[in-house]
Amino acid sequence: MDDCLFCRIVRKELPADILYEDDKVLAFKDINPVAPHHLLIIPKEHIPSINEATPEHEETLGRMFTVAAKITRELGIDQQGYRAVVNTGKAAGQVVFHMHMHVVGGRKLTWPPG
Amino acid sequence: MDDCLFCRIVRKELPADILYEDDKVLAFKDINPVAPHHLLIIPKEHIPSINEATPEHEETLGRMFTVAAKITRELGIDQQGYRAVVNTGKAAGQVVFHMHMHVVGGRKLTWPPG
Repeated sequence: MDDCLFCRIVRKELPADILYEDDKVLAFKDINPVAPHHLLIIPKEHIPSINEATPEHEETLGRMFTVAAKITRELGIDQQGYRAVVNTGKAAGQVVFHMHMHVVGGRKLTWPPG
Repeated sequence: MDDCLFCRIVRKELPADILYEDDKVLAFKDINPVAPHHLLIIPKEHIPSINEATPEHEETLGRMFTVAAKITRELGIDQQGYRAVVNTGKAAGQVVFHMHMHVVGGRKLTWPPG
């Protein structure tokens, strides 16, 4: 996707504070953090949202969770806890239509989640 | 896990309003809904939280997303949107230590997510 913001970050055409990268996923700091730690984990492949996720994406999408585990362990917030959030569509406030997991931590998180 | 609440639901020892089931995951309605639609998607295998997710779980964990897509499409909330949330640890309010994805929809969701 030529003009997708996150595809451009994957291609290193736009800067980002990258925390992790492998063949399937990329993780970087959110530029509008809502907590002391707030990162985004994205599939490198352009999947617009959960709605477009299909069985062939499952390994990549599961990787997002194992990478969340790895990064939060490195940040030292794995034991206190953190919240992983994936917004789909307008009602949830999805802004960039390239699927992404917010990982938010470093403070107490309230319920309901928005 | 003999006394895990969600393992007992998987084994049908406890009742639940089940929406979907396959070999890897189970989905059922949350008994304390925070929105018009609020379901939980869990791996059948006992994974306590994201912290314990390892590469061999990736396909199963990715399945949680494709099942979220399927159920929200069936509920008719896929286009308006919904939020998928996985809490890890006390700071995020994780209560049952069997990993689960909340899928919340049917109303506008605010930001930040708690």
